Amino acid sequence: MADIYQNRWEKARRAMAEAGIGSLLLVPTTDMRYMTGFRGHISDRLICLLLTMDSAFVIVPGFEKARLNRELTGKAEVISFSDGDDPYKILANLLREKGGRAAAVDNRIWGGNLLELQERLPKHRWVNAGTVITPLRMQKDEEEYRLIREAQRLAGVGLAELYQWGLKGRTEKDVAAKLTEFLTGAGLAKSSWGPIVASGPDSAVPHWTAGDRIIQKGDAVVIDFGGEYGGYQADMTRTPIVGKATDEFRRVYEVVFRANEAAFHAVKRGVPCEAVDQAARAVITQAGYGVYFTHRLGHGLGLDEHEDPYMVEGNKLPLEPGMVFSDEPGVYMDGKFGIRTEDILILKEDGPERLTDFSHDLVEID
Amino acid sequence: MADIYQNRWEKARRAMAEAGIGSLLLVPTTDMRYMTGFRGHISDRLICLLLTMDSAFVIVPGFEKARLNRELTGKAEVISFSDGDDPYKILANLLREKGGRAAAVDNRIWGGNLLELQERLPKHRWVNAGTVITPLRMQKDEEEYRLIREAQRLAGVGLAELYQWGLKGRTEKDVAAKLTEFLTGAGLAKSSWGPIVASGPDSAVPHWTAGDRIIQKGDAVVIDFGGEYGGYQADMTRTPIVGKATDEFRRVYEVVFRANEAAFHAVKRGVPCEAVDQAARAVITQAGYGVYFTHRLGHGLGLDEHEDPYMVEGNKLPLEPGMVFSDEPGVYMDGKFGIRTEDILILKEDGPERLTDFSHDLVEID
Repeated sequence: MADIYQNRWEKARRAMAEAGIGSLLLVPTTDMRYMTGFRGHISDRLICLLLTMDSAFVIVPGFEKARLNRELTGKAEVISFSDGDDPYKILANLLREKGGRAAAVDNRIWGGNLLELQERLPKHRWVNAGTVITPLRMQKDEEEYRLIREAQRLAGVGLAELYQWGLKGRTEKDVAAKLTEFLTGAGLAKSSWGPIVASGPDSAVPHWTAGDRIIQKGDAVVIDFGGEYGGYQADMTRTPIVGKATDEFRRVYEVVFRANEAAFHAVKRGVPCEAVDQAARAVITQAGYGVYFTHRLGHGLGLDEHEDPYMVEGNKLPLEPGMVFSDEPGVYMDGKFGIRTEDILILKEDGPERLTDFSHDLVEID
Repeated sequence: MADIYQNRWEKARRAMAEAGIGSLLLVPTTDMRYMTGFRGHISDRLICLLLTMDSAFVIVPGFEKARLNRELTGKAEVISFSDGDDPYKILANLLREKGGRAAAVDNRIWGGNLLELQERLPKHRWVNAGTVITPLRMQKDEEEYRLIREAQRLAGVGLAELYQWGLKGRTEKDVAAKLTEFLTGAGLAKSSWGPIVASGPDSAVPHWTAGDRIIQKGDAVVIDFGGEYGGYQADMTRTPIVGKATDEFRRVYEVVFRANEAAFHAVKRGVPCEAVDQAARAVITQAGYGVYFTHRLGHGLGLDEHEDPYMVEGNKLPLEPGMVFSDEPGVYMDGKFGIRTEDILILKEDGPERLTDFSHDLVEID
């Protein structure tokens, strides 16, 4: 088993011991991938890792056995079942016999499966596996840092190509498809979500995807996109304009730019996450656009596009070195335009660093 | 609100009343789509439908409000929240005040979210929403029947084109990509899973996907694929051979064909699902290949690729008109070849009908 997973298992068991949790149950989510490298998906046939203080089990349908990586099979006892067997009975027995009275279960296990386990083990205490895994996942190591940085670099390569290719006269959907092509060409695997290409009035809708609107002169175009590199996510937003920017657009663009900067400079060890959101929000509010900044500043990023820590009002979690998250203030003026600038940041031992190395300058595309 | 959803809400409420369940909580899964037409996805921001005996609520992030269809907003009270608000507090309060003491929760709600609700409502009884929704979803109506049949027809159109295009000398991945192109061209939207193209020795691995192996003369090629039409799934498998079939291949092909037929003829109102599996299995076992039929016979199909009812040993559920499911016996002889033939069946009032209208004849492709 690679040291990396060995190390994570040790850390998880330490956290479990501290919290009085006897077993950790993960299904094929990014949490399971983080702990094992296994890249399966949740389905109606159970696949899981059960980690206890002194043992580990993988339960898997017989025909999936071949897909288990050697690292996993080397370290855990593999139990396979056939269609018609009841794998939840096997799992419940293991939990009862090996896992103490408290189990941490995958945040994304299907609720129906959790109810089934709860029914079989009515005296068990159930907690979210996030309490064990999330603190580990938030602390990115050097290899993760390298992968995430490379993912953002490749995203920038794709966007630069798109700028060359042009926007005017094309539909949002065509631009999204072409950008995906450039990103794939640059070396990013496809993300699970398509690019947002929101032009003109659409740009004022923060979670627009990409529609049939033809991009015209004078349009602001919010382009929010990602991809995957070595399992890690890219996420980036820029808002170029087609033709010449109006004075109002320039003014708001500058405000969003300064908000993005203010958040970056607020990133310090021990500062609560919400303070980073507040730093950006203060800039936008003082400029008179506060009412148009309708979403949180940012989200963590790693194996998932959205993960802890979240930069949002109410989140008192203190920033620690290794945390990676987005800095994406936006202003959305209904019927006029929207502007969002999104970078990925990391807090290193000696302060924040931008993992998105792509110009913030206002881009006017012919 | 369209009659179709109105009708489903009434049926659900009747089932809830019978089971003593005061509220039904659905998140953006196919269950929620079945009840509302809403096509969102589960994410870290809550979206849900809460149906009680005399009220209905949709909780949604403010920026998602625009995506709600008019049918939904016409009938349910829409409550939107902003980043930083706690939507689970809103939801827990509604459950407490409007929903009695027992709640049926979406089978696929994230376990972590269910734990959060359980913590806020410790005296509640929680059951799987499947107990309410699954019986409804299993009973396909005429429109669903039409959509599923059309999905299977279009799948056949795509496969016929692939046969024309040829297999020999191409990689499994190339064949999978080309098939996807033909299917899309025929009018199917992409399924969430890529086609299985398993050639030669790969064909003996039931859940192979598609690899870099170049298809050669003499290869059996298991081709298992799908797509989506009007939200409903296609799913189909055929096993052509490249060049001339050996006697052994012909013999096994015939056995699988007869097993598929036997299952079809076992489909009758009131017969338990497992009997359909047994009918196919008996044929294969009697021919001496029982040990090579390593999976269940079939799964239900509709808005999901795999849903109830399952044709599997141990499932005593009696077949009823409206049920739609796959009939996919297979024989997998390690190191030699595998053969699977999959059709989609429906039980109509007057007996079973194949929704997959594509020849079962052995196909030898040059």
